[in-house]
Amino acid sequence: MNVREKPEHDGARVLLAHGGGGEMMRRLIRDHIIPPVNNAQLAPLTDGALLPDPRGQLVFTTDSYVVTPLVFPGGDIGRLAVAGTVNDLAVMGAIPLALSLGLILEEGLPLEVVDRVMASVGATAAEAGVPVVTGDTKVIERRSTGEGNHPVAHGLFINTAGVGRLRPGIELDIQRVEPADAVLINGPIAEHGLAIMALRNELGFESVLRSDAAPLNSLIAAVLDSGADVKFLRDATRGGLAEVLADLSESTGVSIEIDERRVPISPAARNAAEMLGLDPLTVANEGKVVCVVSRESVSVALAAFRSHPLGRHAVCIGEITRARPPLVELRTRAGGRRIVQRPYGEELPRIC
Amino acid sequence: MNVREKPEHDGARVLLAHGGGGEMMRRLIRDHIIPPVNNAQLAPLTDGALLPDPRGQLVFTTDSYVVTPLVFPGGDIGRLAVAGTVNDLAVMGAIPLALSLGLILEEGLPLEVVDRVMASVGATAAEAGVPVVTGDTKVIERRSTGEGNHPVAHGLFINTAGVGRLRPGIELDIQRVEPADAVLINGPIAEHGLAIMALRNELGFESVLRSDAAPLNSLIAAVLDSGADVKFLRDATRGGLAEVLADLSESTGVSIEIDERRVPISPAARNAAEMLGLDPLTVANEGKVVCVVSRESVSVALAAFRSHPLGRHAVCIGEITRARPPLVELRTRAGGRRIVQRPYGEELPRIC
Repeated sequence: MNVREKPEHDGARVLLAHGGGGEMMRRLIRDHIIPPVNNAQLAPLTDGALLPDPRGQLVFTTDSYVVTPLVFPGGDIGRLAVAGTVNDLAVMGAIPLALSLGLILEEGLPLEVVDRVMASVGATAAEAGVPVVTGDTKVIERRSTGEGNHPVAHGLFINTAGVGRLRPGIELDIQRVEPADAVLINGPIAEHGLAIMALRNELGFESVLRSDAAPLNSLIAAVLDSGADVKFLRDATRGGLAEVLADLSESTGVSIEIDERRVPISPAARNAAEMLGLDPLTVANEGKVVCVVSRESVSVALAAFRSHPLGRHAVCIGEITRARPPLVELRTRAGGRRIVQRPYGEELPRIC
Repeated sequence: MNVREKPEHDGARVLLAHGGGGEMMRRLIRDHIIPPVNNAQLAPLTDGALLPDPRGQLVFTTDSYVVTPLVFPGGDIGRLAVAGTVNDLAVMGAIPLALSLGLILEEGLPLEVVDRVMASVGATAAEAGVPVVTGDTKVIERRSTGEGNHPVAHGLFINTAGVGRLRPGIELDIQRVEPADAVLINGPIAEHGLAIMALRNELGFESVLRSDAAPLNSLIAAVLDSGADVKFLRDATRGGLAEVLADLSESTGVSIEIDERRVPISPAARNAAEMLGLDPLTVANEGKVVCVVSRESVSVALAAFRSHPLGRHAVCIGEITRARPPLVELRTRAGGRRIVQRPYGEELPRIC
């Protein structure tokens, strides 16, 4: 069914695809979530909100985490929840100050899972240097477990909200992005999403893939402190690199040209994506940031990235161009060109 | 099974009672949630966290809402989510500045329910004068519906976090509570919890009960601005009035004597509680605040409460005493005395 063409009708229901970070989700939010609460602070729909403050501005953000399975190679839902919210603050140009933690636990969840996840929350918060300062816990009735290849684990959902202080003198502004600017990324893509799928056994074989989930605030601080002219930062989570680039192009009217040979991806991830028929550009990351800098700043920015353990494999993957109409183009490994589109609906449910 | 006496053993699981706001929940949080993330800002475990700020202090709080059914007489989960977080900020002495909204939607949820709830979020935010400035939406797989008297509706969970600015010169300090201080409440108790139970048909008859869910920030502002010497404020949600008074007594070592004849309760609520064998003191409210003031301030504080539509029925229900050991005592309608204890485990699952 081509949902893109089909208007909503009475009695329409939320579908799993509404939560996938693609076009259907954008519509759900635009048509059903935003209107009753819209206001000048909410309307920009950036990763966090700027709050006026006498000594500068605050940044405040929130994210819920519903990943299954709860524990996966390279991390777990607790690491994801802390890193994700810290990263949302950092890409807004904020110094994260504090996190909240809302837990929804399903009756029947082993306490050892709670302990494991909370240990991870604590360790990741310490790694990021951002304290959890307030929280809430709810318990819901046990529900049925799923069947087949997507067993629904005994559930645990996490919401983290975060407050940060906007860095003084920050010049992040998507509207400053212009032709000839360079697009950088701090390392290989698609590992989080593919690690989760491998664990769900959708590959049909064991994999060495590990989630890249990590707090990026110190990495981002290094780049912002380097003197590079940084114009745009965004963590490439649900929807992957493709989603970030599509947003950037749509928001600014610029075109973007990416060179497939320069996009870092491990052989294991490339193989896994091929087997699954997935475009790795659309697969979720949890420790990757896309950064647009002026052409003159590329070497300074890359040096700053590479000085940090989480940016050792940082590269320039493409540039902003004047092409019209605005779109995101990939120069393929084979020498061709293809248009990169945001994922439409649900490819990887419960991936974060 | 007397869980109170029984140590946890390996393989222990989260029980529904862990989420009920009583002793088991306190233990879960103390033993499993707090330790890995503990820090000086988290440790006080107050309704919100104080964050240092150059021009004063911020208050930051979070709460998740899992009530079923999603819509009930007097409100719905959206009204609850906004009012609850606004109230947590207000009782901390903060002026609420902004809310975040994290939605977890179950596949299969009718969009009209999303619309209804979001309209309520918007209306309640407007009523409170506090904007929703950032948000997140996730979708989870459809699960089974429950059976019997507790049908599990197609699910919708909400997390709201809130940021507020601490009022300058505020003197709320639980440690200032002392013998002869007066305990006030802004109106009749137990209506939220009993309205939910009536809707679940546990009474076996129709009821006129309506939830009292409401944002209390303007009411609380009126009292704080009145000049009354306000020492303590707490909204009496899960665990009811009993939970607030037990916390107050335990935290300060004072005793509290409450006069049952002065505790406001509607005839409908009293009848419903009697039929269910519930102590109305332990039933959840969502629009009631407990306020401790110096004896000299009682008339000023009551006048301020009563000047506001949500405080018209405010009364003094008792006082702080020197009795030892510290406990909460109720002088009953019949002229006797009984000790008021916090609810132990789960009486009303999914009540907020």
